[in-house]
Amino acid sequence: MAAWSSSPSLRHLLLLRPRLPLSPTCLAGSFSRRHVHSHSHSRRRLFSSASSSTLTHGDAASAHGDGDGVVDVNPPRGTRDFPPEEMRLRTWLFDQFREVSRLMAFEEVDFPVLESEALFIRKAGEEITQQLYNFEDKGGRRVVLRPEITPSLARLVIKQGKSVSLPLKWFTIGQCWRYERMTRGRRREHYQWNMDIFGVPKVRAEAELLQAIVLLFQRLGITSSDVGIRVSSRKVLQAVLNVYSIPEHLFTEVCVIVDKLGKLTREEIEKELMSTGLSSEAVQGIIEVLSLKSLSKLEEVLGSGVEAVADLKKLFSFAEQYGYADWICFDASVVRGLAYYTGIVFEAFDIEGKLRAICGGGRYDRLLSTFGSKDIPACGFGFGDAVIVELLKEKGLLPDMSRQIDDIVFPLDEELEGPASSIASSLRKKGRAVDLVEDKRLKWVFKHAERINASRLILVGNSEWERGMVRVKILSTREEFEIKAGELE
Amino acid sequence: MAAWSSSPSLRHLLLLRPRLPLSPTCLAGSFSRRHVHSHSHSRRRLFSSASSSTLTHGDAASAHGDGDGVVDVNPPRGTRDFPPEEMRLRTWLFDQFREVSRLMAFEEVDFPVLESEALFIRKAGEEITQQLYNFEDKGGRRVVLRPEITPSLARLVIKQGKSVSLPLKWFTIGQCWRYERMTRGRRREHYQWNMDIFGVPKVRAEAELLQAIVLLFQRLGITSSDVGIRVSSRKVLQAVLNVYSIPEHLFTEVCVIVDKLGKLTREEIEKELMSTGLSSEAVQGIIEVLSLKSLSKLEEVLGSGVEAVADLKKLFSFAEQYGYADWICFDASVVRGLAYYTGIVFEAFDIEGKLRAICGGGRYDRLLSTFGSKDIPACGFGFGDAVIVELLKEKGLLPDMSRQIDDIVFPLDEELEGPASSIASSLRKKGRAVDLVEDKRLKWVFKHAERINASRLILVGNSEWERGMVRVKILSTREEFEIKAGELE
Repeated sequence: MAAWSSSPSLRHLLLLRPRLPLSPTCLAGSFSRRHVHSHSHSRRRLFSSASSSTLTHGDAASAHGDGDGVVDVNPPRGTRDFPPEEMRLRTWLFDQFREVSRLMAFEEVDFPVLESEALFIRKAGEEITQQLYNFEDKGGRRVVLRPEITPSLARLVIKQGKSVSLPLKWFTIGQCWRYERMTRGRRREHYQWNMDIFGVPKVRAEAELLQAIVLLFQRLGITSSDVGIRVSSRKVLQAVLNVYSIPEHLFTEVCVIVDKLGKLTREEIEKELMSTGLSSEAVQGIIEVLSLKSLSKLEEVLGSGVEAVADLKKLFSFAEQYGYADWICFDASVVRGLAYYTGIVFEAFDIEGKLRAICGGGRYDRLLSTFGSKDIPACGFGFGDAVIVELLKEKGLLPDMSRQIDDIVFPLDEELEGPASSIASSLRKKGRAVDLVEDKRLKWVFKHAERINASRLILVGNSEWERGMVRVKILSTREEFEIKAGELE
Repeated sequence: MAAWSSSPSLRHLLLLRPRLPLSPTCLAGSFSRRHVHSHSHSRRRLFSSASSSTLTHGDAASAHGDGDGVVDVNPPRGTRDFPPEEMRLRTWLFDQFREVSRLMAFEEVDFPVLESEALFIRKAGEEITQQLYNFEDKGGRRVVLRPEITPSLARLVIKQGKSVSLPLKWFTIGQCWRYERMTRGRRREHYQWNMDIFGVPKVRAEAELLQAIVLLFQRLGITSSDVGIRVSSRKVLQAVLNVYSIPEHLFTEVCVIVDKLGKLTREEIEKELMSTGLSSEAVQGIIEVLSLKSLSKLEEVLGSGVEAVADLKKLFSFAEQYGYADWICFDASVVRGLAYYTGIVFEAFDIEGKLRAICGGGRYDRLLSTFGSKDIPACGFGFGDAVIVELLKEKGLLPDMSRQIDDIVFPLDEELEGPASSIASSLRKKGRAVDLVEDKRLKWVFKHAERINASRLILVGNSEWERGMVRVKILSTREEFEIKAGELE
């Protein structure tokens, strides 16, 4: 019962059962190792795009002409398995998300990972809508593995309609997908924590969201010397567009272009802006304002009367009152890549500048009307599971992720499997996490106890059991004693 | 800020933003209500299969010739949203799954909801493989929204290879999908709790799984007069096939046919069995054995030497020792619909017989070799989230699912939003769940406090605040007092 052995190359291959009827001996057995080895290279690549694009449904195996299909033991490209250790890390992180959401009095909601494509069709050239993991279902419907969660949230808010009272404070943790060429080894799925407030037009809502983000960082042991939150408002750009009398319908497009600052060169950005029909004067005006890093300078340039300045000043004053002012800074270059933002936008970043944005969000007061409903002021953020874990690793802040078990029950003799069953069963009913181990040597059991951080080892042996007793070993202290089985707690 | 109003028919419609450039006024506003009403009927059906099968990506809107697309506010057919109340129910149920898994010392794992189709291609005629939610991705790969989790588990066990030591005890909670015509209003997705043990050839493994299921029922308040677990073994059928010298390769097919007993008539089953090439004598023999409900009768028919009888006797003796014998019964008609089961099979059912099976599982000792790896003895079960909730509803066992919040902080004056922010912020840092409410009447706040089960209401008013005090109201006792803001715990 020890770890089974298989050659390393075998571990990376899964043979599909052949389509032809099998002889009885084949059914229960497995293909010979030699046979597998001889084909391993070509099989591994069976599901790569080059070789499989012309395969018909279910005929993958026969396409290689050898009658045996191959399934990679890896999950589909760009996706992850979560074996126990990774799962414990994920659970721990999600628990932090949930605890902060609880402190902020948000309610959890969820949506199908599969949505109608129509919910995500936008025409502003966003990266997110250009990388949709979309397809047609068997009923001819255009569906998509959702790339983000906000449109689903908006959909549910509209659906709930009058049955809910505003403001709504909802959070969700869900998997999001994208389809892009895997040239950079980027993943096709990640999990995202979303917090959204519907029905609060004032920047109070943004102030609350920022507190949630800061509370999370603090719980994780991250300080304001590790991470900062850049804040601006799309109304800054709006004000600039107004100065140059740029038509309103170009606003979203300009935002999406300007968000590429940092990815593209300044020249490329300017070129893209010009191609929308903006004058070079307007383009220069936009670029200049975006370089501002001080709110007083912004006020000087735009005047104190504009909403952008008033909103930002209010938000920074809230930050003082909440006590997280040292975490945030004004940075006019923050625009965010989503088309629907209308006001305050923000993103958290590592101060060293090594990683992508840790999270990002903003106000989207006009999303619902794009769905044909009456608008409700709204804002929210998305916080992925990837960058934060990179940061925690880098800072040495990942907690101990080892397994923990209360008791191991081990019968020293096969005859004692009955008593061992009753003991394990009754301890579990009392709320203890019990691992019942059999058919192993005592030495293995001790090693196992150490590996899974067991608190106690309960040995059921003949000489004790004759007197209704079991032997207990406390593993941290090495203390050992006998106790009546019925008195175990 | 009260609940917003929109006409009921509007609430069921989402307008997609038109593809043509909008005038500035259109961008921020919404389509006129009259305009929406006049088209509502045809729009609602836009994504039905009849009308959309010929639409090209992104052109859904224009297909109706009016320039406005429509998105249903409902999630895709056969899928569910989880608004807060339903989400609380789901979280509660999943917490029960997790707690039982913890007591049984199982480790949580997870897999992508999207898998390679090859993992699920089997040829035994199972319902599950005939209703795959499969499609081709943009790279030409055949992928599937997984219909069940066991093949992913097996895949990960093979992938982990020597890095894990057996036995493995893994659980997971994940969404599973199927695609079938929605004639019966059946859903296309559900969540499933899976517990699986790899590396234990003895029925000890099944005994442990059954304890987990019973522990769950007990935690939910379900008794053995509400629910029973039917147990049999595929080795029973195997023994019958041996008697009639039926070729081994027909075993799986026979199992899948026989599992339809209850759905199809006896005549239909007989016809299907005959069509595989079985003699009518063998068919009668199979049907007769499947009607047995007593283990001693089975022993009489098959003889005590066969593995099926020995396994089942051992399992029932374990059941006595664990203390759940009153929950299980032998029923030879249980075969289960999955192709890969090889030994003990079981399913839980409501005693009144109103519902579908609550959960089901069994031993699958030869699954890994169908993937080209060395076999490892294994067994497990899947436990869906749907039938159990129906049963709990019927028995009145659903717990109180109302929201719970510690504190509401409410500034009585807009000027006091600063102090209210600090108070809310500091209570949250102390671990209290705080809802900060503004711009409402006091009457609304009291109603709100009741609705969300707040423990305390903290009023920040001018006269108290001048002295650094706030007014606290304990909502359960209606007790009211003043306290220094800094002394709030």
